Amino acid sequence: MTAPEIYDDFPMSWVGDWAGRRAMITPNAPALHDVATGARYTFAEVNVRAQRVGAWLVDGLGLGKGDVVSFIARNRVELIDLYLACGKVGVILAPLSYRLKKRELDDLLGRIKPQAFIYEARFAELVGSLALPETVRRSVCMDGDDALYEREVLATAPRAVNVPLRMRDTFLYIHTGGTTAVPKICVVPHRQMIWNSFDIMATGYGGARAKTELLTFPFFHVGGWNTFTPVFHCGNETVLLREFDPGEVLELIDAGRVEHFGAVEAMLRMIMAHPRFAATDFSGVTGISTAGAPCAEEVMQTFVGLGVPVAQSYGLTEGGPSNFAFMGRTGELEEYLEHAASIGTPMFHTDHKIVDRDTREEVPRGEVGVLCLRSAHTFGGYLGDPERTAKLIDAEGWVFTGDLAMESDEGLVQIMGRADNMFISGGENVSPEEVENVVMAHEAVEEALCAGIPDERWGQVPAVLVVARAGQALDFGALKAFCKEHLAGYKVPRRFQQVEALPLTGAGKVNRNAVAGLLE
Amino acid sequence: MTAPEIYDDFPMSWVGDWAGRRAMITPNAPALHDVATGARYTFAEVNVRAQRVGAWLVDGLGLGKGDVVSFIARNRVELIDLYLACGKVGVILAPLSYRLKKRELDDLLGRIKPQAFIYEARFAELVGSLALPETVRRSVCMDGDDALYEREVLATAPRAVNVPLRMRDTFLYIHTGGTTAVPKICVVPHRQMIWNSFDIMATGYGGARAKTELLTFPFFHVGGWNTFTPVFHCGNETVLLREFDPGEVLELIDAGRVEHFGAVEAMLRMIMAHPRFAATDFSGVTGISTAGAPCAEEVMQTFVGLGVPVAQSYGLTEGGPSNFAFMGRTGELEEYLEHAASIGTPMFHTDHKIVDRDTREEVPRGEVGVLCLRSAHTFGGYLGDPERTAKLIDAEGWVFTGDLAMESDEGLVQIMGRADNMFISGGENVSPEEVENVVMAHEAVEEALCAGIPDERWGQVPAVLVVARAGQALDFGALKAFCKEHLAGYKVPRRFQQVEALPLTGAGKVNRNAVAGLLE
Repeated sequence: MTAPEIYDDFPMSWVGDWAGRRAMITPNAPALHDVATGARYTFAEVNVRAQRVGAWLVDGLGLGKGDVVSFIARNRVELIDLYLACGKVGVILAPLSYRLKKRELDDLLGRIKPQAFIYEARFAELVGSLALPETVRRSVCMDGDDALYEREVLATAPRAVNVPLRMRDTFLYIHTGGTTAVPKICVVPHRQMIWNSFDIMATGYGGARAKTELLTFPFFHVGGWNTFTPVFHCGNETVLLREFDPGEVLELIDAGRVEHFGAVEAMLRMIMAHPRFAATDFSGVTGISTAGAPCAEEVMQTFVGLGVPVAQSYGLTEGGPSNFAFMGRTGELEEYLEHAASIGTPMFHTDHKIVDRDTREEVPRGEVGVLCLRSAHTFGGYLGDPERTAKLIDAEGWVFTGDLAMESDEGLVQIMGRADNMFISGGENVSPEEVENVVMAHEAVEEALCAGIPDERWGQVPAVLVVARAGQALDFGALKAFCKEHLAGYKVPRRFQQVEALPLTGAGKVNRNAVAGLLE
Repeated sequence: MTAPEIYDDFPMSWVGDWAGRRAMITPNAPALHDVATGARYTFAEVNVRAQRVGAWLVDGLGLGKGDVVSFIARNRVELIDLYLACGKVGVILAPLSYRLKKRELDDLLGRIKPQAFIYEARFAELVGSLALPETVRRSVCMDGDDALYEREVLATAPRAVNVPLRMRDTFLYIHTGGTTAVPKICVVPHRQMIWNSFDIMATGYGGARAKTELLTFPFFHVGGWNTFTPVFHCGNETVLLREFDPGEVLELIDAGRVEHFGAVEAMLRMIMAHPRFAATDFSGVTGISTAGAPCAEEVMQTFVGLGVPVAQSYGLTEGGPSNFAFMGRTGELEEYLEHAASIGTPMFHTDHKIVDRDTREEVPRGEVGVLCLRSAHTFGGYLGDPERTAKLIDAEGWVFTGDLAMESDEGLVQIMGRADNMFISGGENVSPEEVENVVMAHEAVEEALCAGIPDERWGQVPAVLVVARAGQALDFGALKAFCKEHLAGYKVPRRFQQVEALPLTGAGKVNRNAVAGLLE
């Protein structure tokens, strides 16, 4: 194979150096508005911070290409420093969700094996309880009273630390819930973040066209990085919040500081329910993209009524993160309501097909099947699990999403449910099997069956049917406390129901669809 | 190697289907304004035309992936039909310059070996004189009196003809002049057009941000397709002219129909010299990019004086076509004049270095060396000439441009000349060796030495020193006519000078730098 044929395999200096490149092209343009501190940074300033942190990773911690840095923190400028610094030097960044509990985090850390661990002071107790693997050379609190981050990390002299990377070198490890009893860890190569950003740009979606993008998603999901990266890539400004806060969001909107943002339905409901909502001036907002799960039409209606286009988008860490979006076609606001249930069309560089769940043959338009995706922004596989990866991606590069979908004659796609048991609560994937395993670990429980049930605030929440162990009395208060100790909050069942035996289907399998009907 | 590792090798349906994808996402947005006919087309309409032409190529001509269609025509909507149709079905499009003469065209056709040939009626006589290779199954006039294009090609029922293509499949054969005695043919894979468009988008350059882009470059150069493609990719509108015409350009600008355009210096001079110029309202123009060769500061000054940012860009068919651009950094118009001599910084996804012409080691900032480029939009090599390709691109993917350059402390690059003999006339590369070969083919000529000399209109024009054959009298009128018969107009020497012997350097080689000084 001659040199020019395979570019995924060429180390190039720009790969990963998002900050250096942007600082070279538009050094003085605004890059970041950190709402928590009020600070605003140009691309040149963001790059100098990333150069300092990069030099600290290399010279201070002795890290290099392929080493791993993990963190537990809310959204902070220090995480953006880390992300951009890791990109420069080829270090892999592995975010951990602060919503998870010790059991879940220990499992992830044991598989990620980071060389360094960074955390926010408010999670010090949780971090102290964790079984950090022996690989961890240094554990640093980014906002401790000792101001270590300022004194040591940001005091490192900035230098051009970036090394040429291949597009298929790993950039991130992102854990995702759903479909399995333990979280999966997605390997995200630079190729994926680059191509996903291209797909967003070419499609003309969201933050790639807005001068200011509000970042509402946490950095422990790919959605956080997926919002930040294309906006930064195009030279636009990211508005950064510590955490989603409806009052703060409305204040920023009212001040004209936000042109576009993404949100899950639960966030939009919180915004609508906030006392500031009625008096807020939305005229500066050119669009809202919903993600994570279908959004109720009544919610979309509220914002469209204010003159703001609201449209669904769709994607998954393994195949995107961005793959579909409904893009306005007529210039009329009504179309956003007319197509409220639609995730729109594939993005420019995403192939799709809808197949029979068993035969994997394409189904005719108008019939429900499983959505499959193919693009150059498919992930790099599950960490340490090539068999699961091979089940997900076929030899032609198609990713089997597990989402049931239907395509209209106009070529617009609608998500119809899941081909497996996973459900989504407030934008978080929940695996009923994982919940059942924890419930069944309690001494009083013989059997458990979990399913998502409708919830106005979160879309769906977990409910569980429980069969008591012979001779044991069920105390739901104690069982819930047990679940809270071992499961992230959004996975803890909201409803418990004792049953004599689990419901079965006609074929004699447990019947998850019967859970909701058996709740009293 | 597992499936997700190498994406250059995966056939995907979107590759080449620019029209289908854009029609899917923004069907009703304006895509094309054909000034010659006044017609305007949406993306959906452009796609239906491309589907008709694609179906005609496949069903009518029996062409498929890897076959070649060549054309000789000015810019027309029919060429856009062809380009988008070829992209869908994997046929290679091979434009030929109507500025070339039979000798040059026969040579190119013999190497390109097209299966079909399309031409404009005004070139029928030229086409009739050509030695079309036996591979040509069909030769079609796109605007003949018989209206064949409408009756047959556009009457073909549109269908979804696109096939999955790999990014490294060939899209175009583009011939370029310079550095050799015969034109080189560049193999342009889909990867190159896609990545080049991404680089333009991420950099935020030109037509990727303008709603309407005027296309001034001919489609026989990559510059024509390179202007059209990113604009189309992003969903913006291309304003198409048959040929560059300063009066027509001014009329469109005055009507507010043009936000951005690219031009070579000679075009800008023609615009400035036009009677309409003084009365034209430039307020709708947000930028002009110059290309092809450095632009005189006095020309840039004129447009900057009207409030229009004018900046240089730089690239080459082999390594781009777009690699550098000066992007405003301060928001002040003055900076465009301050940096008038600069080609700016590399684009986001282009690596560069400046090396010693002999050792190929990097030179320190501030010193002149040869500019080298590395990106994923490097071309696929010279057709049928792997040795020349290997000389141009090294094992790390660096393209040796042959352009002398110097980088400032700010990281801005300036072109200082050529490391070889090539020069540029009105945006066209000229090889002095090719001119010399033709001059020496004349019976009265013993020796010839060609070089570019300064010209106010074209930047540089060819001049030639001639040594007469013993006993032969030189008739410069006859010699010029001989050159006109065998060379494209821009290659024909403007000045002839008889000399007793060619000037030599101290080392005893012919001294091209002495040509200008010996003209009387």
